[in-house]
Amino acid sequence: MYEALKQAAWAANLALPKANLCLATWGNASQVDRQAGVFAIKPSGVDYSSLRPEDMVVVRLSDGSVAEGELRPSSDTKTHLELYRAFPTIGGVVHTHSRWATIFAQAGREIPALGTTHADTFYGPVPCAPALTKEQIEGDYETNTGLVLAAACADCYESIPAGLVKAHGPFTWGRDAAGAVENAIILEEVAMMAYHSLALGAQPVDSYLLDKHYLRKHGPGAYYGQTGK
Amino acid sequence: MYEALKQAAWAANLALPKANLCLATWGNASQVDRQAGVFAIKPSGVDYSSLRPEDMVVVRLSDGSVAEGELRPSSDTKTHLELYRAFPTIGGVVHTHSRWATIFAQAGREIPALGTTHADTFYGPVPCAPALTKEQIEGDYETNTGLVLAAACADCYESIPAGLVKAHGPFTWGRDAAGAVENAIILEEVAMMAYHSLALGAQPVDSYLLDKHYLRKHGPGAYYGQTGK
Amino acid sequence: MYEALKQAAWAANLALPKANLCLATWGNASQVDRQAGVFAIKPSGVDYSSLRPEDMVVVRLSDGSVAEGELRPSSDTKTHLELYRAFPTIGGVVHTHSRWATIFAQAGREIPALGTTHADTFYGPVPCAPALTKEQIEGDYETNTGLVLAAACADCYESIPAGLVKAHGPFTWGRDAAGAVENAIILEEVAMMAYHSLALGAQPVDSYLLDKHYLRKHGPGAYYGQTGK
Amino acid sequence: MYEALKQAAWAANLALPKANLCLATWGNASQVDRQAGVFAIKPSGVDYSSLRPEDMVVVRLSDGSVAEGELRPSSDTKTHLELYRAFPTIGGVVHTHSRWATIFAQAGREIPALGTTHADTFYGPVPCAPALTKEQIEGDYETNTGLVLAAACADCYESIPAGLVKAHGPFTWGRDAAGAVENAIILEEVAMMAYHSLALGAQPVDSYLLDKHYLRKHGPGAYYGQTGK
Repeated sequence: MYEALKQAAWAANLALPKANLCLATWGNASQVDRQAGVFAIKPSGVDYSSLRPEDMVVVRLSDGSVAEGELRPSSDTKTHLELYRAFPTIGGVVHTHSRWATIFAQAGREIPALGTTHADTFYGPVPCAPALTKEQIEGDYETNTGLVLAAACADCYESIPAGLVKAHGPFTWGRDAAGAVENAIILEEVAMMAYHSLALGAQPVDSYLLDKHYLRKHGPGAYYGQTGK
Repeated sequence: MYEALKQAAWAANLALPKANLCLATWGNASQVDRQAGVFAIKPSGVDYSSLRPEDMVVVRLSDGSVAEGELRPSSDTKTHLELYRAFPTIGGVVHTHSRWATIFAQAGREIPALGTTHADTFYGPVPCAPALTKEQIEGDYETNTGLVLAAACADCYESIPAGLVKAHGPFTWGRDAAGAVENAIILEEVAMMAYHSLALGAQPVDSYLLDKHYLRKHGPGAYYGQTGK
Repeated sequence: MYEALKQAAWAANLALPKANLCLATWGNASQVDRQAGVFAIKPSGVDYSSLRPEDMVVVRLSDGSVAEGELRPSSDTKTHLELYRAFPTIGGVVHTHSRWATIFAQAGREIPALGTTHADTFYGPVPCAPALTKEQIEGDYETNTGLVLAAACADCYESIPAGLVKAHGPFTWGRDAAGAVENAIILEEVAMMAYHSLALGAQPVDSYLLDKHYLRKHGPGAYYGQTGK
Repeated sequence: MYEALKQAAWAANLALPKANLCLATWGNASQVDRQAGVFAIKPSGVDYSSLRPEDMVVVRLSDGSVAEGELRPSSDTKTHLELYRAFPTIGGVVHTHSRWATIFAQAGREIPALGTTHADTFYGPVPCAPALTKEQIEGDYETNTGLVLAAACADCYESIPAGLVKAHGPFTWGRDAAGAVENAIILEEVAMMAYHSLALGAQPVDSYLLDKHYLRKHGPGAYYGQTGK
């Protein structure tokens, strides 16, 4: 069962090290099937090089229990679960420790919108959630990570498909797992450029430039690409 | 028709990701045929990996309308058009979001001439056009981008074949599309070195060193390479 | 004799340039056999490309003399020896001049724990040993390097499997040579991110986040990966 | 004639882009035959990809005239010539615009000896020659570049086989062209690390550490590698 879902999640996981977003086993992608009420995610601590589609673990949205799979799911599974619950229109989630996005997360700083490269994908600064409290960390840590991040991104998750967990790293999401991977790649690129642009004194873009670039790629008035031509 | 023109534009577009100047579909190259009054440019939002010469879109210099091609031309087509109109001696245009040049653009700063690597290709600082106004952005945005950039580079476009659009990224040009690609590669390299040299306190080169290096490669007294030996 | 030991040390040495941790011949890995009282280490100044398992030099823990091998052992052999003596539970040692870890070493600064990427492997800041004195350098230099580093890491070597030698570079260790290589790769990654995070104003993580991340991967309560499922 | 000499110079030129020290045609290597009174150097402006051993140009040490070869020699030939004249014990010269060394050159700053990686090859800071005067630039520019650089390195050229030309880039030398390439690779690595170490507050190494590391690799007391075992 869930062959297509596992295949999609597997392909997205393999795309992460290929895009230089992951060292070792540090990253995971998942894809949800809302109708079936499950998502497929990477098993914990397994090397990308030996990962097979059938290794993906299928987890229930209702309670986080395993619906299918022999292996233990990613240690970040409960964080994915909370994001799927909080953001009903997303189809895939990615978590990495990609370098530049993690640098902003470690500093506890949002990634400001400093140019059109950012604005083409993220309709404003990428939020950084506040640090978890001692109680949140010592309690159900991975669930709390998802809750804190979801709260920080609640108002913008559809137009800014990414968020940072302070002292940890980035999460991205998208229409499906592949879309979340794409957003993870773009996030890393804009984070790298934001870091260095800040050092040269860059300021956030004007709201009307942000509108122009985001809206020429997204929504009913979009005119980028070949769709709806 | 326009086979050679489309072939040249296609090859230049493929050269961009190969030179690490482009992520995803973020970049485009075009080449003009002044006599035919047209230029060939990349279609909008198409992956480089699947791009074929026949996918190039041929656009009229007179009014920007499509002369040949099934696909929608790059969303930056009108900017290319304005550059071809403003700079009558150029044969190709390239636009990328290459990292270091974009960093300067995001900060709204010109790329100063800090060494002979810069001076060999760019006869002075690479200008950064001022930010577009709200009216310019909400109006015919891509045309206005070209007009603002062309104005910023009007006095130096032949000896400094590059310019930055504030909060956006670099454009380069050249004798043809391949020449514009070459200049985009060099621009990225000198931008990377300028960024770090500034942090060490570098100052712009003396005008006589700029003269020496630019003129030993360009113009009647050039003695670099094998041409005119 | 010692075929398996030499094979393991050889494989670890080859892994270093593959992971971009070494230029030229700048790096060495060793593995110890506590029962036999020897360790196998790279010969001095031999290119990785021509290195064979039988080139490894087997050295006695008792006095540092060569037990087997035609070639002269790495010039850092005595430093490895002191680490094996001081840290009785380790099985492998790696030394490199990897870029970002060396940058911290050259500045004489510890690598602070700024995020969970660090905390997953290193249970606190990676120490930087103080500079060797004139006497220590002009005396038995490589032995003194090991002694000074071992002293700086004495209290934390099991939970922080790495240390920096001021003005020199990093050493890492692990359960075996392969484990030490893994730690060297992770050290380089966290050093790169720490450098840039500091520039954005990052602060060391809270102790309870450090506890959470280190202990979910290490020790009796670990729940990362597939072991002990 | 000069087959071996041309072969050696050719191989060294090819090694430059392979080591990521050169973009386009920006770099050249030469090797001298003191007895024959000539050196072989890259032709000007020829792509590395199409370079053949027989394209090397053989130039006389006596007057810089071409002894053999169809092509025009590198525009930097006279600079190589002055270095061979000023440094009688060197056998090869390399010039590149490698990124980090050029960054120091553009800032007009020496590369300080901040660690043992530097000290293993360069017995002190790598000098940066002062800017050429207007007269020196407008006169015999390439010869003057060599003279100014040779003067800056006169006292240390045997133990510090590299120097920077202000606002330009690095030159290195060695026992032959291959040795000069090796030093160019190491120079770039130590320059990258020096740049970032300075930002963390690094100070030059103590003279006795410099002595220890340089002398354990060079000179009569050397004990690194397999030579003289």
